[in-house]
Amino acid sequence: MIRILELEAKILSEGQVFPGEILKVGSFLNQQIDVGFLMKMGEEIARLYKDSGVTKILTVEASGIAVAFAAAVKLQVPMVFAKKHQSLNLSPDLLKSSVFSFTHKKTYDIVVSREYISPDDVVLIVDDFLAKGNALIGLIELVEQAGAKVAGAAIAIEKGFQNGGEMIRKRGIRVESLAIIDSMTDDSITFRH
Amino acid sequence: MIRILELEAKILSEGQVFPGEILKVGSFLNQQIDVGFLMKMGEEIARLYKDSGVTKILTVEASGIAVAFAAAVKLQVPMVFAKKHQSLNLSPDLLKSSVFSFTHKKTYDIVVSREYISPDDVVLIVDDFLAKGNALIGLIELVEQAGAKVAGAAIAIEKGFQNGGEMIRKRGIRVESLAIIDSMTDDSITFRH
Repeated sequence: MIRILELEAKILSEGQVFPGEILKVGSFLNQQIDVGFLMKMGEEIARLYKDSGVTKILTVEASGIAVAFAAAVKLQVPMVFAKKHQSLNLSPDLLKSSVFSFTHKKTYDIVVSREYISPDDVVLIVDDFLAKGNALIGLIELVEQAGAKVAGAAIAIEKGFQNGGEMIRKRGIRVESLAIIDSMTDDSITFRH
Repeated sequence: MIRILELEAKILSEGQVFPGEILKVGSFLNQQIDVGFLMKMGEEIARLYKDSGVTKILTVEASGIAVAFAAAVKLQVPMVFAKKHQSLNLSPDLLKSSVFSFTHKKTYDIVVSREYISPDDVVLIVDDFLAKGNALIGLIELVEQAGAKVAGAAIAIEKGFQNGGEMIRKRGIRVESLAIIDSMTDDSITFRH
């Protein structure tokens, strides 16, 4: 697996650790976006998946959109973002799954119009963070509901000390994270290499 | 003012008009994103504002992020997206304004960490739609709270038959819309040229 050392340097210099194993990278990834840097991340994601026949990128609003957009530009495929809803009537036109958020301690639905993922699609799932894996599993379920193929997942920052990445890789799904954090305290962040 | 004729063609071929003067362009702008096309829109926005000394782009989650990202890549400046909240305690670290959504018939707050817009910034506001102008006014207020300068606004699609664009231009703020719809029925969409 490939890591971008520049991403690790940026996490170390700009990331802020908060109680509850929360890492804030709002200065370049989550609220303010360093678009030149994200385009580099998109280039790396494209390099990793260039031979996978990807036809579409899927992410979830809102903080996944920028990195997914960058990857889609570099892979030259369309991207789709799932929308989050508190609750929703089931419509046959929608792909839908439920995601429990540990950060917000509640369950929300993620939905995509069925017309935007077809059974012929080979879908690369892109997101900014991977922790316990709930959002990623929800996105995988959307692709499966569409009858499409999952090429794999590309994640900006994986919290390797939580079990999401391990669990999803054990299911045989390729997960590439540009940085994997092995441990994180107020004083230090250690990366897996 | 400049329009992209290709955008008008795309609206005509892919847009769907729904009751309540709602235009859905989910196939390329709002849920599925045609990234190559959005990069062209970003290029046009960059051309329009290339001499305005823009240092930062501001949008609001979620559907503004993609077009703002594209414009930021082409202008080579960072972008920031405001987050939407149902209600929020006031913190001195946050820029905040309230926006009434006619689509959802409710008021929500939009917030940005104060650290991401400084008094030195010259901010270009980018959004996917301009109708009654409430979201845009909210974003202008965030920039004013930061003590920064508004370079103007760049909008993908303006509903020219509603009064938002006219109202904001009358305040002396430059508003460039890549397509302006003058009228819209189930059968036809007419553009302003």
